[in-house]
Amino acid sequence: MKDSVIVLSGGMDSTTMLYEYKDNIALAITFDYGSIQNAEEQIFASLHCRKLSIQHLIIPLDFMHKYFKSALLSSPEDIPTINYDEENMKSTVVPFRNGIMLSIACGIAESNNLNRVLIANHSGDHSIYPDCRPEFIESIAKTISLGTYRNIEVFAPYTNLSKKKIAEKGNFLGIDYSETYSCYKGGRLHCGKCATCRERREALLMAGIPDNTKYEE
Amino acid sequence: MKDSVIVLSGGMDSTTMLYEYKDNIALAITFDYGSIQNAEEQIFASLHCRKLSIQHLIIPLDFMHKYFKSALLSSPEDIPTINYDEENMKSTVVPFRNGIMLSIACGIAESNNLNRVLIANHSGDHSIYPDCRPEFIESIAKTISLGTYRNIEVFAPYTNLSKKKIAEKGNFLGIDYSETYSCYKGGRLHCGKCATCRERREALLMAGIPDNTKYEE
Repeated sequence: MKDSVIVLSGGMDSTTMLYEYKDNIALAITFDYGSIQNAEEQIFASLHCRKLSIQHLIIPLDFMHKYFKSALLSSPEDIPTINYDEENMKSTVVPFRNGIMLSIACGIAESNNLNRVLIANHSGDHSIYPDCRPEFIESIAKTISLGTYRNIEVFAPYTNLSKKKIAEKGNFLGIDYSETYSCYKGGRLHCGKCATCRERREALLMAGIPDNTKYEE
Repeated sequence: MKDSVIVLSGGMDSTTMLYEYKDNIALAITFDYGSIQNAEEQIFASLHCRKLSIQHLIIPLDFMHKYFKSALLSSPEDIPTINYDEENMKSTVVPFRNGIMLSIACGIAESNNLNRVLIANHSGDHSIYPDCRPEFIESIAKTISLGTYRNIEVFAPYTNLSKKKIAEKGNFLGIDYSETYSCYKGGRLHCGKCATCRERREALLMAGIPDNTKYEE
């Protein structure tokens, strides 16, 4: 039954989820919150929705770019590429991003008589991003169910999966990961050096999947 | 300490809260989600922030007008003025509105090193609006605390107060309620007949406060 909405960035994780649950997804929503990599991600988000004939909305959230503080919302030079300590990586957090995206997706689900919202947070995000952790997902799922007439469900089946496991799933589903985008620097080519590029390369390497992504270096 | 953000509509309840907690409020946010009454409400939201020298942001949420279903987002003719049964009133619910506004306000609080988000839901809203009930507020407070580094707090001290009690507070604080806006029909004058106009008139009458609001009829 096509009764679900997915929060789709166009990165590896949400693209994998799009393919895994394509038969249940009525609508994909990509949020453009003015981050450096949004434009590149959207190209792939749109491409896959088109391939799978899934309705796709791109929703601009200008207020995030305007009023939120995050290195991800400023310029490529602010993205750390050397020092990966926790304090440094925290600079790329966009405050409460998953809370905001899930809330909006839930309102759209309720408006369109859909029952579930899918999101592709995974275990690699837990240490840095408070709004990716299992206890957060459990709590917002309860909140969204309580706050809607349809008792909308939040479904986040990758919460405790590693990116390597997600890559294995995607490989099995036939996804070419060069048709996804990860880089925090937002260039046409992946920089290969920022935290998300490293995470992507490592996941593909560990899963034994040939990496066809074109990297700058 | 001025460490709080308030979600301010410009109606009776949030205006009262603005005055009650003015010494703690660093920032007021009014969301313009394209509802019929937003334009009129904003005039009073801005007026009171100016009077109290509180910083005020008006944030447009165009996606709500575009993708959400609610009589409040369509035309004045769709607002019920006669039949007040629950089914009819439900047509004016904007799905998960409080969840969305609190989530965004929380991201802005975290971005600006503020600690609390204030919202003025009250007991009169419980039957129709699932995202005004105590169990919803409790759950989203937990979610927002878990999803932020600063463990942002949600503060909703009117949750179990009636509108009459709120009006009494406001009267004590010296608020002239003709400088607030309630009407769901969104005209320059209050219609006096829609559900929110009736609720407003009743609250002022029961609290024994002279009602200086100009009504159409």
